[in-house]
Amino acid sequence: MSEKAPRLSDRQRLSWLRLIRTPNVGPASFRDLVNRFGSAEAALEMLPGLALAGGAGRVVRVPSVAEAEAELAAAERHGARFIGIGEPDYPALLKRMDHPPPLLAVKGEPAVFKLPPVAIVGARNASLAGVKMARLLASELGREGYGIVSGLARGIDAAAHEGSLATGTVAVLAGGLDRPYPPENVPLLEEIVARGAAVSEMPFGWEPRAQDFPRRNRIVAGMSFGLVVVEAAKRSGSLISARLAGEMGRLVFAVPGSPLDPRAAGANGLLKDGATLVTEAADVIEAIAPLTGAAIQLPPRLDEPPDFGATSPPLDSDRARLLEALGPTPVGVDELIRHTGLHPAQVFMILLELDLAGRLERHSGGSVSLVLGNA
Amino acid sequence: MSEKAPRLSDRQRLSWLRLIRTPNVGPASFRDLVNRFGSAEAALEMLPGLALAGGAGRVVRVPSVAEAEAELAAAERHGARFIGIGEPDYPALLKRMDHPPPLLAVKGEPAVFKLPPVAIVGARNASLAGVKMARLLASELGREGYGIVSGLARGIDAAAHEGSLATGTVAVLAGGLDRPYPPENVPLLEEIVARGAAVSEMPFGWEPRAQDFPRRNRIVAGMSFGLVVVEAAKRSGSLISARLAGEMGRLVFAVPGSPLDPRAAGANGLLKDGATLVTEAADVIEAIAPLTGAAIQLPPRLDEPPDFGATSPPLDSDRARLLEALGPTPVGVDELIRHTGLHPAQVFMILLELDLAGRLERHSGGSVSLVLGNA
Repeated sequence: MSEKAPRLSDRQRLSWLRLIRTPNVGPASFRDLVNRFGSAEAALEMLPGLALAGGAGRVVRVPSVAEAEAELAAAERHGARFIGIGEPDYPALLKRMDHPPPLLAVKGEPAVFKLPPVAIVGARNASLAGVKMARLLASELGREGYGIVSGLARGIDAAAHEGSLATGTVAVLAGGLDRPYPPENVPLLEEIVARGAAVSEMPFGWEPRAQDFPRRNRIVAGMSFGLVVVEAAKRSGSLISARLAGEMGRLVFAVPGSPLDPRAAGANGLLKDGATLVTEAADVIEAIAPLTGAAIQLPPRLDEPPDFGATSPPLDSDRARLLEALGPTPVGVDELIRHTGLHPAQVFMILLELDLAGRLERHSGGSVSLVLGNA
Repeated sequence: MSEKAPRLSDRQRLSWLRLIRTPNVGPASFRDLVNRFGSAEAALEMLPGLALAGGAGRVVRVPSVAEAEAELAAAERHGARFIGIGEPDYPALLKRMDHPPPLLAVKGEPAVFKLPPVAIVGARNASLAGVKMARLLASELGREGYGIVSGLARGIDAAAHEGSLATGTVAVLAGGLDRPYPPENVPLLEEIVARGAAVSEMPFGWEPRAQDFPRRNRIVAGMSFGLVVVEAAKRSGSLISARLAGEMGRLVFAVPGSPLDPRAAGANGLLKDGATLVTEAADVIEAIAPLTGAAIQLPPRLDEPPDFGATSPPLDSDRARLLEALGPTPVGVDELIRHTGLHPAQVFMILLELDLAGRLERHSGGSVSLVLGNA
């Protein structure tokens, strides 16, 4: 995952795709594997053995070269391509969130990623006023040079994209780029990619499931300096996006509404919790403009893993000790190292094995927990 | 203006009324006069001379005993009475604002002043949702034991009174108690005084003029721990009330609304400026409840004037020196004392004379300026 190489070679891209499409390999284990073995290609060879050591019940099925080539071909047919995290077109802010996707499928014009990005999200069953507000904010922010990021959902999301079609908008999909949802927004998506872009971390052909939408929301928040919630009921997906944005240190904005309108309850609640009140684009710009110059130039956050090469592989007794220290409650990796007395490199290695075996869950902030009933 | 005497005698009340109804005598000069001369009765005798010394073009016309008795009789016919600032029924928080009215005309049940008071104000041309919200907040706060203060205006004010008729509400009038405005709220006013109260600092028979409404707003804010703005356009009277409340150190609350609704622009603006967001009564109670126990028991703010008795009357040269230091820009009395080198008692005395002559304007925070073109 070198920052020095400006572009992945075709061969590298193929290996990256095979590795990230392997069951139980997520963005975090992808990074650890590449760091441990020097390249995705080398990691692919070691992976089945690691998963077995971690306690996987059966051999992990790594996608074949032919399967990965088929996905690359599908992307090409769709006019899309995969951008690796180290490559120049990769969205700058996305790199700086916890566990960014190593490969992003992109259709459209990646130049839109260079505009300082603002997310606008909200209710699917939005009011006419909410839709109007989202469109207005998006078009005003667009005119001021901001890129608008949203999730292509009905209601507020669609209005945000519509308002910024002419200036640049990014749709983040919960499924594969060839499986847009909802169907009625397919014509809108075609307009979006004409000047903006559609992106997804999911495989081509992937039909989005309920659990893929929070994951999509994470990308929406992660791509953006700040996230504006226009209308949102209590306990809605938009509030999850706002929470994720807050956890990432991104700015959270909300458009107020009447307390008698249930569609305003979520946004008003965010305001009570300290979100910035927005009645016009200037409120967003005032808060975000100071960040856009310097911050977007920053290198991705460094959380360098220990030097795996310098230590011997973990012993079964080490694995047992670490397993004993793990449970369903998330704990920090630092705590695990202190508590077990194991070498940090060994701890990282065993966690990686457990992850590949589907036995580890990674939480925001870098803590981990054991997946129960799956040993 | 003794805190020791629990009640004014009839004779004292008559003198107080004559003094406060004298042209150019406001709450501030009333206080200074009583402090200087020991009683309102004594001040009445000295007053014409003082006004002449201050440069009044003609003799100040002090209302006669008969005129004051006529107002007392008018009040009695109306079932109203005058409560002096030192008397037990005087609203507790009102005493603690700058320049509280020395006499308050009250009709109804002064027990309502013992409920911890919250003001609810807003637009006259309120939306149905705004009216509903005001009524709801007032009735919920009323049920929780709070008294609701408002200005009897159309729209939000009327709804706030209506919502709290059963639990206790106070209407502050901009004119005399026998001149309620607007006429269509006269039936509401009759319901208000059945369990609550109507109050005014203006004389019986006084038709409210435009400039009397900000003065009324000052009393609304001054009577209350906090002020809730429900719907308010930009540059509306409710925003003036909110500013006055903030200047008095009272809490300012606002109910949010859609940015596309011009009636929400004022309230949303207050929220941007740091007002507490309200979607339900609990938001108000959470902020006010901690204040109600201790604070309402506090004695009125002490800003004891210097001991006038100990010094000789000011000389014309002192008056000239002070006049030179004054101008149309407000300056603090402390600054005047330092700048002129005059004895504080002399400065207070000369300011009092100027005030009585209609040549002084007093500003919040205790600063003063010269009224131009009126010498």
